[in-house]
Amino acid sequence: MLNALINVNGQLKSPSEARVPVMDRGFLYGDSLYEVIRTYHGKAFGIEEHLDRLEKSAQLCYLKFDQTRDVYRKAMLDTLAAYQKQTPGLEYYVRLIVTRGSGKIGFGQECVMTPTQYVVIVQPLILPDEASLQTGLHLHVARRFRNDPRALDPAMKSGNYLNSLLAYLEAKSHPKHSDYDDALLCNSDGHLTEGTTFNVGYIRRGILATPPLDIGILDGITRRLLLETAREMGMETREVRFPKERLYEADEVWVTSTIKEIFPVTRVDGKKIKTGKPGPLTLRLREKLHQKILQYAEAQRK
Amino acid sequence: MLNALINVNGQLKSPSEARVPVMDRGFLYGDSLYEVIRTYHGKAFGIEEHLDRLEKSAQLCYLKFDQTRDVYRKAMLDTLAAYQKQTPGLEYYVRLIVTRGSGKIGFGQECVMTPTQYVVIVQPLILPDEASLQTGLHLHVARRFRNDPRALDPAMKSGNYLNSLLAYLEAKSHPKHSDYDDALLCNSDGHLTEGTTFNVGYIRRGILATPPLDIGILDGITRRLLLETAREMGMETREVRFPKERLYEADEVWVTSTIKEIFPVTRVDGKKIKTGKPGPLTLRLREKLHQKILQYAEAQRK
Repeated sequence: MLNALINVNGQLKSPSEARVPVMDRGFLYGDSLYEVIRTYHGKAFGIEEHLDRLEKSAQLCYLKFDQTRDVYRKAMLDTLAAYQKQTPGLEYYVRLIVTRGSGKIGFGQECVMTPTQYVVIVQPLILPDEASLQTGLHLHVARRFRNDPRALDPAMKSGNYLNSLLAYLEAKSHPKHSDYDDALLCNSDGHLTEGTTFNVGYIRRGILATPPLDIGILDGITRRLLLETAREMGMETREVRFPKERLYEADEVWVTSTIKEIFPVTRVDGKKIKTGKPGPLTLRLREKLHQKILQYAEAQRK
Repeated sequence: MLNALINVNGQLKSPSEARVPVMDRGFLYGDSLYEVIRTYHGKAFGIEEHLDRLEKSAQLCYLKFDQTRDVYRKAMLDTLAAYQKQTPGLEYYVRLIVTRGSGKIGFGQECVMTPTQYVVIVQPLILPDEASLQTGLHLHVARRFRNDPRALDPAMKSGNYLNSLLAYLEAKSHPKHSDYDDALLCNSDGHLTEGTTFNVGYIRRGILATPPLDIGILDGITRRLLLETAREMGMETREVRFPKERLYEADEVWVTSTIKEIFPVTRVDGKKIKTGKPGPLTLRLREKLHQKILQYAEAQRK
């Protein structure tokens, strides 16, 4: 049994009871937006930054919320608190999903203008284990391209997630490498964009580089904090387009996400990055970034 | 109240009762496939062609069905029959949805290898009315591009439908033209691909032209039947890439879908196609195509 607590429009349910209408557009069309938040010391981190991004996603898809931001914040915090009571002492994963609601099949006004609905899922946070931190990730640069931002903007965190899932499954079913952990995607110009559920970058000669937002990627909150952290450590940072070969030749490669914070990549496409061990600067950034996040979390609590 | 009957994994439900788990991947990720079938004289048309296409979609997204084709066919036919008993004497719309099932959030094997689930929705078929056939459609060529087939192949009929929906909403919120009926999408090369829920083409000097399948479009079953019909009428047909300007200069413009069969387009981007009336060849094709479909339907019944 899955251990989680799910809030469906204000009703708390177990995972086996939590249901949404078949006619919900989130189910019919992937017509939903979402955000994932984690806790530090049991407290939701960066909730306002995530709600800001949710509002930006909504603008990108003509979606008008029928609930206020306060409703979403309260739903996340209340569901988290209720689950913490049931299952105390952990760190938690909190996913907010907002859908365009439930109505008729189709695109017309009477179909699309249904009231938005929300779901909050809270479950134990599963972090990468210590062993995987020492091994680092092995990533496949997928043949599949990232969604073109002029077709479906990856900056919009939506329930249309097949592009990333299919890149992941491409890596996992690779005929030559059975040990890929996950995948990165390029755009049609051959420039790296991001991973399936994370931002990506590299370090070379002490300079930290990552693709720019306008290439069509998620504006990662951890990515932002990492850029700040690197600059505070005196590193030069660059947001720049680059092909996958740049990773092969890098001193270090890393990924960032809310769950992973910053995490070392030690192999790409079967090729070792330098010695094939987690990069020393990446590990130092990991320490500093974690401290920064804890400081922010502390400040947000006041 | 929505009048429909919904089959959720073998259980018949009303629209207000029909629910799927929040943890279903169709809801979380749009990780589902679908087909839409209509009836002629109350009988499902082209069910094998649609099941063939469903199987092709599954190959494109690494999905292995846990139900047989017979289960899906039976679910569609049984749900249709049950709804026909409740609400006889109509024509019907039948939507089959297959999702990758319900498990944990994430992409890992334990998340993705859950048994596939299905849903069938049957409701009255709503056809375009006679007035709209005389007016014809006014279509907007969206600024938004169609999904690149190298990112997310439009030949795969999936629950990731935001790209098309957003093109539709772009048309409907256009600052200059408030009377757009729907939208067409180009690819990043500026070639027309298809509409939000239909294939597209034009007629010029008696030649019928439509974008080729390998441009990245749905392999429309009605599109196929139309190409046959046109050739049987002695028309030359071409599957060819073209920019939107080709439509402006065409003698006639048309769209095809299971629901619309072939339907005249009389304006594109505010410009009249010739006289701005439905094209005579389009209307003749409409008659012939309809006859052909009825013949096929008759043959399938035997």
